[in-house]
Amino acid sequence: MPDQDGFKVTPWTVEGEVDYNKLVQEFGTQLITDELLERIKKHTGDLHQFLRLKYFFSHRDLNWLLDRYENGEKFYLYTGRGPSGSIHFGHLMPWTFTKYIQDKFDSKLLFQLTDDEKFLYHDETSMDKISKYTYENILDIIAVGFNPKSTKILIDTKHIRHLYPIAIEIAKRVTYSTVKAVFGFHDSTNIGMISFPAVQASPCFLPSKIEGKPTPCLIPAAIDQDPYWRITRDIAEKMGYYKPVQIHSKFLPGLGTNGKMSSSQPETAIFTTDDPEQIQKKISNSFTGGQPTVALQRKLGANPDICPVFWYLRYMFESEKSSDERYIQCKSGGLLCHECKHDLIDATKPYMIEFQKKREKAKDQVNEFLFE
Amino acid sequence: MPDQDGFKVTPWTVEGEVDYNKLVQEFGTQLITDELLERIKKHTGDLHQFLRLKYFFSHRDLNWLLDRYENGEKFYLYTGRGPSGSIHFGHLMPWTFTKYIQDKFDSKLLFQLTDDEKFLYHDETSMDKISKYTYENILDIIAVGFNPKSTKILIDTKHIRHLYPIAIEIAKRVTYSTVKAVFGFHDSTNIGMISFPAVQASPCFLPSKIEGKPTPCLIPAAIDQDPYWRITRDIAEKMGYYKPVQIHSKFLPGLGTNGKMSSSQPETAIFTTDDPEQIQKKISNSFTGGQPTVALQRKLGANPDICPVFWYLRYMFESEKSSDERYIQCKSGGLLCHECKHDLIDATKPYMIEFQKKREKAKDQVNEFLFE
Repeated sequence: MPDQDGFKVTPWTVEGEVDYNKLVQEFGTQLITDELLERIKKHTGDLHQFLRLKYFFSHRDLNWLLDRYENGEKFYLYTGRGPSGSIHFGHLMPWTFTKYIQDKFDSKLLFQLTDDEKFLYHDETSMDKISKYTYENILDIIAVGFNPKSTKILIDTKHIRHLYPIAIEIAKRVTYSTVKAVFGFHDSTNIGMISFPAVQASPCFLPSKIEGKPTPCLIPAAIDQDPYWRITRDIAEKMGYYKPVQIHSKFLPGLGTNGKMSSSQPETAIFTTDDPEQIQKKISNSFTGGQPTVALQRKLGANPDICPVFWYLRYMFESEKSSDERYIQCKSGGLLCHECKHDLIDATKPYMIEFQKKREKAKDQVNEFLFE
Repeated sequence: MPDQDGFKVTPWTVEGEVDYNKLVQEFGTQLITDELLERIKKHTGDLHQFLRLKYFFSHRDLNWLLDRYENGEKFYLYTGRGPSGSIHFGHLMPWTFTKYIQDKFDSKLLFQLTDDEKFLYHDETSMDKISKYTYENILDIIAVGFNPKSTKILIDTKHIRHLYPIAIEIAKRVTYSTVKAVFGFHDSTNIGMISFPAVQASPCFLPSKIEGKPTPCLIPAAIDQDPYWRITRDIAEKMGYYKPVQIHSKFLPGLGTNGKMSSSQPETAIFTTDDPEQIQKKISNSFTGGQPTVALQRKLGANPDICPVFWYLRYMFESEKSSDERYIQCKSGGLLCHECKHDLIDATKPYMIEFQKKREKAKDQVNEFLFE
């Protein structure tokens, strides 16, 4: 249920219309300033679309990380995925951004698949089903184009031997009080969920174990994952590690009413396994910021701010300039929704055909990407 | 603190003088009857001293296990050790009994070393220190003489990949309420301890995974470990496994005042690493059930029931007949404490010299005994 601000963000639910400035205040993170963007640009040469558009908008300790980097200290990237369903645009975006950081900073990447959490969280889900999603999701991860030489995928149940010794170091320092406060656990929460935050936090410190010295770690993820790292940050230094650095993205709206995206309603998201016909149908039926009639739209204009079609085009497929023009045209009534939908369909179909080719090829690369 | 019955038994503390009949009632286990002993004897030919003397005195479902066994179904043994210190007589006794069951019933044995729990439980203990104890304790386990072909030692942090998939199945079915009630956990308990019962319960079901079908499992252990298996038994059948069967021992009194045995007071226990001089000294200084003066002892007799020297001799080194005689002599004042101590020293020294030879030889057998 949304809280008194009209929205609620935890690692399991995002509800209501999210006020990102409030979220930054509430979570105690920092907004990414133009000054920080300039500093990043010195190293990357260009700025990724997601930075320019402030899709990645918040951080913890990015300046500290750049200080280290400028002193010759490499950092690891760490991100993850809970394999409980298929991959859609909302997942691909932070991964694409992670690849960009990997390429620009020559970073090693640990990619964790939390099959254990998905099993523990969903009452009715079997491990067999989760293992199928795990395999399918790995194909998507590989298809994003990460460097196979510097990317290792960890599946919790398969690679637990690397994580467990770190997880118990973490778990020893975290009380039930803390996870109750941070995650809203209660007496009827199962004991697997209660200790899971320690497993999820472990890859933050695995780079230090691998390298044999404290090694910085950057986590690109949607801001709803922040609570995990808050606890991790609190205990990191006591354990002799660096605090994990974070860069937070916003959420991508779904195609359902009011930007709803739901795995139980597959028509609200475009999946990497959708064929051209499905893509066409989903986008054609998408919610938009449009008016009920063409006449009204011409007269009053539409609302791109709440329109998933606009944001998909802006984030994924258009230059900032074209997108700004589309915004103005939309607001003024110069564009009709079916035109934008048409543009998004035209951009998405070849993107997905190309992605699916890489995804097919990924079937031969799985072992190369798995942690030993 | 002892509870209102004057004693308190949990997996971490045994306090006060234990009333075993009350404990059986409180825990809801069954006393081992003479009828059951007769049934066991049919298979073993003789009855182990610890059964005849009711050192192993309580059980859950032993008759069910024998039904299965008589129908041709083999069972696994599972026992464990928290490696937080050296091994003394109190540890060796259930292990010796486990070896007896292994030999008589041709059972496979899983021996779990819960190094993770010891790390999580003791605030100040480092993993390095625990790892040293783990290695030392393994030498003791091997020295007991288990069959290397059918015994596998699991170290939690080393073999977690075999346990974790089962542990999350268990953890999913156990709530915080349950572990709070059973183990007395509270808000300031660390999250590692909270989920640890799932790791400890996992080897109960590992035999079924190994054999590919539900496989009975018998746990010989001191009765203070019962709470772990109570939860395991509650969920076993829902998970498609058999409930673990248990056989419970009493506690061995220590050499300290009122039978106290404490790792922090090494003079209260005889360790497998003690040399003859230490053995001599510890037993000579032991608490007994004797009177303050020889004259009083001759007049009033002593109390063998509370005397560790009597019980060590009875359980470990004497025939029932000689022990009964010693009991009568002691009560009547015909025996002085230094005589019994002398007998115990004479029995313990060669026992330990022999054990230490096997323990030395065990250094070459560690890998043979470790789970793959």
